[in-house]
Amino acid sequence: MSYPYGIFSYDIASPRAGVLVGDHILDLELIGLLGFFNDLSLDPTVFTKPTLNEFMELGRPVWREVHQHIADLLADDHAALKDVAGQVLIHRSRATLHMPVRVGDYTDFYASEEHATNVGRMFRPDGEPLLPNWKHLPVAYHGRASSIVVSGTPIRRPKGQFLGPENKPSFGPSKALDFELEMGIVIGKASKLGEPVSVDEAEDYVFGFVLFNDWSARDIQRWEYQPLGPFLGKNFGSSISPWIVPLDALEPFRVAGPKQEPTPLPYLQTTKPGHFNIDLEVTLQPTNGPEQVLSRSNARHLYWSAAQMIAHHTVNGCNLNVGDIMATGTISGPTPDSYGSLLELTWNGKQPLTLPDGSTRTFLQDGDTITMRATAKSGQTTVDFGEVSGTIQA
Amino acid sequence: MSYPYGIFSYDIASPRAGVLVGDHILDLELIGLLGFFNDLSLDPTVFTKPTLNEFMELGRPVWREVHQHIADLLADDHAALKDVAGQVLIHRSRATLHMPVRVGDYTDFYASEEHATNVGRMFRPDGEPLLPNWKHLPVAYHGRASSIVVSGTPIRRPKGQFLGPENKPSFGPSKALDFELEMGIVIGKASKLGEPVSVDEAEDYVFGFVLFNDWSARDIQRWEYQPLGPFLGKNFGSSISPWIVPLDALEPFRVAGPKQEPTPLPYLQTTKPGHFNIDLEVTLQPTNGPEQVLSRSNARHLYWSAAQMIAHHTVNGCNLNVGDIMATGTISGPTPDSYGSLLELTWNGKQPLTLPDGSTRTFLQDGDTITMRATAKSGQTTVDFGEVSGTIQA
Repeated sequence: MSYPYGIFSYDIASPRAGVLVGDHILDLELIGLLGFFNDLSLDPTVFTKPTLNEFMELGRPVWREVHQHIADLLADDHAALKDVAGQVLIHRSRATLHMPVRVGDYTDFYASEEHATNVGRMFRPDGEPLLPNWKHLPVAYHGRASSIVVSGTPIRRPKGQFLGPENKPSFGPSKALDFELEMGIVIGKASKLGEPVSVDEAEDYVFGFVLFNDWSARDIQRWEYQPLGPFLGKNFGSSISPWIVPLDALEPFRVAGPKQEPTPLPYLQTTKPGHFNIDLEVTLQPTNGPEQVLSRSNARHLYWSAAQMIAHHTVNGCNLNVGDIMATGTISGPTPDSYGSLLELTWNGKQPLTLPDGSTRTFLQDGDTITMRATAKSGQTTVDFGEVSGTIQA
Repeated sequence: MSYPYGIFSYDIASPRAGVLVGDHILDLELIGLLGFFNDLSLDPTVFTKPTLNEFMELGRPVWREVHQHIADLLADDHAALKDVAGQVLIHRSRATLHMPVRVGDYTDFYASEEHATNVGRMFRPDGEPLLPNWKHLPVAYHGRASSIVVSGTPIRRPKGQFLGPENKPSFGPSKALDFELEMGIVIGKASKLGEPVSVDEAEDYVFGFVLFNDWSARDIQRWEYQPLGPFLGKNFGSSISPWIVPLDALEPFRVAGPKQEPTPLPYLQTTKPGHFNIDLEVTLQPTNGPEQVLSRSNARHLYWSAAQMIAHHTVNGCNLNVGDIMATGTISGPTPDSYGSLLELTWNGKQPLTLPDGSTRTFLQDGDTITMRATAKSGQTTVDFGEVSGTIQA
């Protein structure tokens, strides 16, 4: 058992590491100060840092030692902590959550076949929906790390250049602001420049997973993206959930992915199932209306696995650093109620959604709050990823 | 007068800041220890750090105070340093040069009209060479920061996926390894998320310029780049020169850029000349042959200025951090001997170059060393950017 890790502050306490335990957060800085980590092989001051990077750098054997030790402390209704439970378990309502990692490089993949197919159908109606390379490699591009923010941070509607009336370039606030339902892989181990990570070793480099909302301005993106890909249509902001669910917590949810046909090249082949059965949900809440579910999807709908993404990313020798994030790309399922973006849900604005308050949406309006949640369940085991939420500001 | 800044080590001295003074490097850590910075407003321990980021974070008023103070110390044959000159001025041959900055995000523009036109002519022979957006905005994409290395670091030939015989995806070492002659803008001031930097303020965010070689594997790039842009064809390595020439040193070389027609949107308009007259040169040296000039170009050939790149990059609210690098894209001039890549110099391999040793090149061979140099001259003033060099390893 391992709990989600994050960075939080409360009252006058500065940001520190914690794990999420139901409605409470276990304060790992305080646990360390009280001597509960004294028998472990790590220096517990790693939990006093404002991000988890230093902890992640210690490597999986230490992560596992800590996961297990925390599970022991919390076992039997946290009997081991009984004298200090009131002090070290902070109710979530008292906590402010912070960025859990200092992000190095951020890469965004395009790994859902349904999403890539939908986009292809919309924008290349006369051609094959998938481009020729799509089933041979996990297509990806580099994103902007500086503008990744934690859940709860408002997102300002970006201004930019797009084609206006008579196809003239014009400037103004984006009129086609969208979300993208993704998960983010948090890299916990560095690799060396020039040395590929094999697909079978790739999961060794994963600390855990977060929810990821890759906000997109479709009008800006459409005008700028030829020939070098998305830029200002994406880099005004991306939101991540504050809790990183360790890979070790996801073993009960491991499943095989879709059959890959044609068979990918050997460097992308692995026999170990590399997908995870994680339920995903997106809701929209307008300023004065009720929250409404827009989409229900599942991480297992991805075509390419995290291990394949990492193997591909490094096959040319590109190096990974602790704190890098790789996002999956929009995770759309096979049915229209499982599409992971408004672009797909409204079929590029042609089929507006009607909300319970009677208003309609093609793209996001100011004041709209998008919330993504994820839960994995298997038998008695449930892992809650928490949520990533953001409200659009004018 | 301001000198180029870098990070260097020598003998048993750990990496520290220095400025390049002809054949010598002035050791700024030692100068600080000896009290020569005591009357300035900065804490001289910023020069003991392994990168220049902490110094850059102090801002332009401090940069200028330091530039001036160093110029005073070095004036009149460094009279002020006469008792310690032998100690604080280290001959370049004794020094090892390091990455001058800890790179945050790296962005690569596509700002040379000649380069974009050449690429368009090669790959879209039946269409307009420039895509419709090109003259309306500085096209760019995000690159990989982790694999930026300092001059002298060998570059391993990347392996990857590309189309082989019968257009089947195949895997192996790239057969179309290229360089790209670029300059890099080093950001020295952070901006806030959500707050655009205007084109007239944009140069306030520039600490200085470096030479930048954006190594490219054309075969990998060609197969992967649709629809999201370059990825593994670029991110196996980029090389920068170790010396950052401060913007303040480039004032004598400021020139107007090409007339921009059609007039760009107001957020990209400025009356201040934003280009710089900097001579650029690329040479190739094979393992056992003489060095040969491949190209001579000039930074003034760029269509978009650094100020326009920054204004565009932030117009949607994307934030900058100290240490970010924006590269210009390949700087090709109007004549074939001024093209900044082998792709253009050999017209996609159709016109091989013959080297003095009789061998020919379409793309780079193992053992080839590519060196780029830059110099700006105006009247009595010369600024030497040094060089960025890299040798291809199998």
